[in-house]
Amino acid sequence: MSTQLDSWNDGAARRAIVDFVTQVTTPGSPAFVPPADRIAVFDNDGTLWCEQPVIQLAHILLRWNEMAQQNPALRDQQPWKAAVEKDMTWFRTAITKHYGGDESDMPAIAKGVLSAFAGLTTEEFAERVDAFFRTESHPTLKRLYRDCWFAPMVELLRYLEAHEFTTYIVSGGGRDFMRQIAEEIYGIPQERIVGTSTVLAFRAQDDGGDLLMQAKLDVFDDGAMKPARLWSRIGKRPIFAAGNSNGDIPMLQFANKPPRPAFRLLVLHDDAAREFEYVSGAEKSLTLAKQYGWTVVSMKNDWKCVFALDEVKK
Amino acid sequence: MSTQLDSWNDGAARRAIVDFVTQVTTPGSPAFVPPADRIAVFDNDGTLWCEQPVIQLAHILLRWNEMAQQNPALRDQQPWKAAVEKDMTWFRTAITKHYGGDESDMPAIAKGVLSAFAGLTTEEFAERVDAFFRTESHPTLKRLYRDCWFAPMVELLRYLEAHEFTTYIVSGGGRDFMRQIAEEIYGIPQERIVGTSTVLAFRAQDDGGDLLMQAKLDVFDDGAMKPARLWSRIGKRPIFAAGNSNGDIPMLQFANKPPRPAFRLLVLHDDAAREFEYVSGAEKSLTLAKQYGWTVVSMKNDWKCVFALDEVKK
Repeated sequence: MSTQLDSWNDGAARRAIVDFVTQVTTPGSPAFVPPADRIAVFDNDGTLWCEQPVIQLAHILLRWNEMAQQNPALRDQQPWKAAVEKDMTWFRTAITKHYGGDESDMPAIAKGVLSAFAGLTTEEFAERVDAFFRTESHPTLKRLYRDCWFAPMVELLRYLEAHEFTTYIVSGGGRDFMRQIAEEIYGIPQERIVGTSTVLAFRAQDDGGDLLMQAKLDVFDDGAMKPARLWSRIGKRPIFAAGNSNGDIPMLQFANKPPRPAFRLLVLHDDAAREFEYVSGAEKSLTLAKQYGWTVVSMKNDWKCVFALDEVKK
Repeated sequence: MSTQLDSWNDGAARRAIVDFVTQVTTPGSPAFVPPADRIAVFDNDGTLWCEQPVIQLAHILLRWNEMAQQNPALRDQQPWKAAVEKDMTWFRTAITKHYGGDESDMPAIAKGVLSAFAGLTTEEFAERVDAFFRTESHPTLKRLYRDCWFAPMVELLRYLEAHEFTTYIVSGGGRDFMRQIAEEIYGIPQERIVGTSTVLAFRAQDDGGDLLMQAKLDVFDDGAMKPARLWSRIGKRPIFAAGNSNGDIPMLQFANKPPRPAFRLLVLHDDAAREFEYVSGAEKSLTLAKQYGWTVVSMKNDWKCVFALDEVKK
């Protein structure tokens, strides 16, 4: 893959990125930042790959179906009932109610999510995620979920790394879910993936032992938790932060510590033809972007392609 | 520093380390492990530097004195009272009571520890730790705390890295405390330090924000928590794990997942002349070492020097 941002149109967004990287990497520049401090953090869902639907939920739906097959009593309980009946309306209604302040379906969903993989070892969970990515496809984009990453953003990762940045994913998505695919599609290794996690319990056995997933949330890595989690993992503030929703605001704010330079980027989903068009959940972040001069990337106008560089060649 | 284990005597421990590293790095060997999976994890207190006294406690004692100066009412409350009066007996008694099942002093100590730096930003805390390491000395070893690291263990870090291992610290010590000194003395960067942490709260302000330390424990990274925390950070099992106490047992067990090779190491403090002699808190780990063939390193017999390579030259 190119490290020259070839998949980006020559517009304000691309120019802002190149200007920033030039400034922080030019020795003697007042904005110069040494390589060890060139930390770049990226949200995942909606920033590096598509989030309609959230890919991890597709993985959980399959598991709920499997659980309901093994234990028929679950077929009369939500969320397993909706999963078995392919009743997506129930899930959409639950989310709509949630946004309206009605949390009545949330305990059932939380219980379903947290119990889905409880009792598995971390290695057993990894094998399941591997199998999911080998076989399962996006319902409307007609491509494997593993191929739903945004080519210009992956090119941006390579561009930053070529300029001695270290890249991290800091996402509300599941840490151990993302880890099974991130190296292959993003080139980001497991130790640079920060995300949501369930509690892991160590079970010792003779001279060894395993970590077992528990039906209990450890950390939901979104919103104000993102700065705390990335600090926990990296021990430094990033100077480059990219997201696409309100949940990324604190991470983008945290990147800014004058007089140190900082670059903040928001991906705007405005491309109904090639991906999707929506601002739901991103309204406040877009307002702040305008107020503080964060760079908003229009998928429609700034990207030559969305899903694969080979589209450029057509 | 040499990467040849020159500060180690030619004994069973050194030979076991060299044999293991040779096996896992020799292409075609049945025990070969690719570089990306050569993860080595090290406890810190008592494994990489001395723990009598625990260096971080010296830092907290100074802070308690400072707090009691600013707020005289604290001088009548433990643990500030003992800190001001330099009443080390009170602390020792509290620990002895704790080991005997009497936790009556523990709430006061926990409150003192957790409140010591509450309200500081992560950067303000880092500056305090920096100042501590620039000036404060060990009471009996007559050297700065920053010079209390074990030279043979640091040489072991370099030896492993020369064979394409990636090294991490996984310690019950404070993550953000260790991070201020680990790169300088161990050559291990901030993102490879895993440790105990307090809750960090993000405080947004205009286009920026800070992380503030809270008077609340996030994770105590000891015992069964060590495997969970290292998995959280690294996403892989180590193949090399080093510790010195019962709190390291789960981490050492977790490193072993046959048929993959694994090396487990315990530092035995048996050198009253050059450091200290004690097994308190390590009894169970030494029993397991004997039972399962973990490598026990005798400071007295296996190390040519303890605190600095230049001692070898004498």
